[in-house]
Amino acid sequence: MKYADMFRATENFTLKDEDAGLRRLGAAAAGVPDAKQLDKELTRELAQHIAEWQDVFTASRSKKLLIILQGMDTSGKDGTVKAVFGDINPLGARTVAFKAPTQQEKDHDYLWRIHQAVPGAGEIVIFNRSHYEDVLITRVHDWISEKECEQRYGHIRDFERMLTDTGTVILKFFLHISKAEQKQRLEERLKDPQKHWKFDPSDLAERAHWDAYQRAYENAVRATNAPHAPWFIVPADSKTQRNLVIAHIVREILDNLQLKYPAPHPEYASIRVPD
Amino acid sequence: MKYADMFRATENFTLKDEDAGLRRLGAAAAGVPDAKQLDKELTRELAQHIAEWQDVFTASRSKKLLIILQGMDTSGKDGTVKAVFGDINPLGARTVAFKAPTQQEKDHDYLWRIHQAVPGAGEIVIFNRSHYEDVLITRVHDWISEKECEQRYGHIRDFERMLTDTGTVILKFFLHISKAEQKQRLEERLKDPQKHWKFDPSDLAERAHWDAYQRAYENAVRATNAPHAPWFIVPADSKTQRNLVIAHIVREILDNLQLKYPAPHPEYASIRVPD
Repeated sequence: MKYADMFRATENFTLKDEDAGLRRLGAAAAGVPDAKQLDKELTRELAQHIAEWQDVFTASRSKKLLIILQGMDTSGKDGTVKAVFGDINPLGARTVAFKAPTQQEKDHDYLWRIHQAVPGAGEIVIFNRSHYEDVLITRVHDWISEKECEQRYGHIRDFERMLTDTGTVILKFFLHISKAEQKQRLEERLKDPQKHWKFDPSDLAERAHWDAYQRAYENAVRATNAPHAPWFIVPADSKTQRNLVIAHIVREILDNLQLKYPAPHPEYASIRVPD
Repeated sequence: MKYADMFRATENFTLKDEDAGLRRLGAAAAGVPDAKQLDKELTRELAQHIAEWQDVFTASRSKKLLIILQGMDTSGKDGTVKAVFGDINPLGARTVAFKAPTQQEKDHDYLWRIHQAVPGAGEIVIFNRSHYEDVLITRVHDWISEKECEQRYGHIRDFERMLTDTGTVILKFFLHISKAEQKQRLEERLKDPQKHWKFDPSDLAERAHWDAYQRAYENAVRATNAPHAPWFIVPADSKTQRNLVIAHIVREILDNLQLKYPAPHPEYASIRVPD
């Protein structure tokens, strides 16, 4: 589990902008020309491998897979879904994007809408944002106290423990970009007519709280990192490398599950299909 | 909180058939004639009080109320809903009866369907059976191991803790009938043409596991009894007294919440409704 080990959050990790940049990994590390292109091709192969793995996953129905993507605005959550999970069969998979809660959602506990969306047996669900927003944006803006935030960490640990106890594999990715990289991506959204629709003035308001967000992420990741529901901190200033790293990690962990197609029914051996 | 204290499950309580019978309580204790009729009238008054209380509960929107009813077949869960909660406004209340799980429900963790049904702000929800079936019938029939059952007690404690942390008042009632009383009620269902539709042959199959059920209830109640989510063991061989006791407990606990109508908006004072 080379990549999974390399990027799993450590107990006292901190978020530093310089760690968001390109690493000497994959084709880039070998110094080959067209390294970026080679990495893209490798990601595509890994994505296809994941899609093939989905077949045995659906057939065995013994597990549920929950992928959680978190990160600052423009960190590439949508791009990751497309690059790494673009080949899986939508019949057994869903992506759920959690927005600001509706009035009905606010009337319930913050895990209510989350629990409804978790995967069933043989299903893959990708959360684009998640219950972690309830200890991030809420904490940064002081909508909840530090005490309430600590209480929520406990709820989240209990909730994820229950999900894994009942057969869910949980993988949590923080897409780590630097403040400078976000500036560039926001400017692109403003300049490029094809990306203009993605720009939201509220992104600038949140950017003003950059440091508070980094601390909130550090605290949340430390408090909820667990062997059964690990956090991976993925350098994401390079989109190519971000996709490659996530695809590697997902593939490694899925292969490690060693799922098998269900054994054939012995009595089926004697069945003859009539003419 | 007289009745609540009297019937709250103690740490090492046991279920004995003799405790299911009529107690010297209410009008019966005073030895007045027509005690049963008087108790019925008092229950009706308490039910109306609860219905009136619902108005301030809905208006304040500060809390959620979850009532859980558990008990052997014929113990009177439906009758309790009618007698104690029959007067509340259905606009802000729901009764949810949990049956054998569907395939989609089985594909998820056992708390998935439960969490979807919990009350929102200002809402009253009554569970007729609940997640407790997942440590009762499942354990009696050995569909889950003792170890898995203990693990589920932990999940249930965590889940109910999270619900109460986020504003839910949880009251859990075990309607305690004796084996002899159940025999009589099942026979009534067989004889009385008006009750015949309620008879289900599978009730007899479950009755054969009577002792195992009593032990499973004892274990579940002991493992999940908590100050914030208390269990009440209600003697239920007498329907009149069962209703009276539950109505008293609910009323006491609701009154104790001391809910208030929201304060009027100061700026409303100067509003003049035009002709």
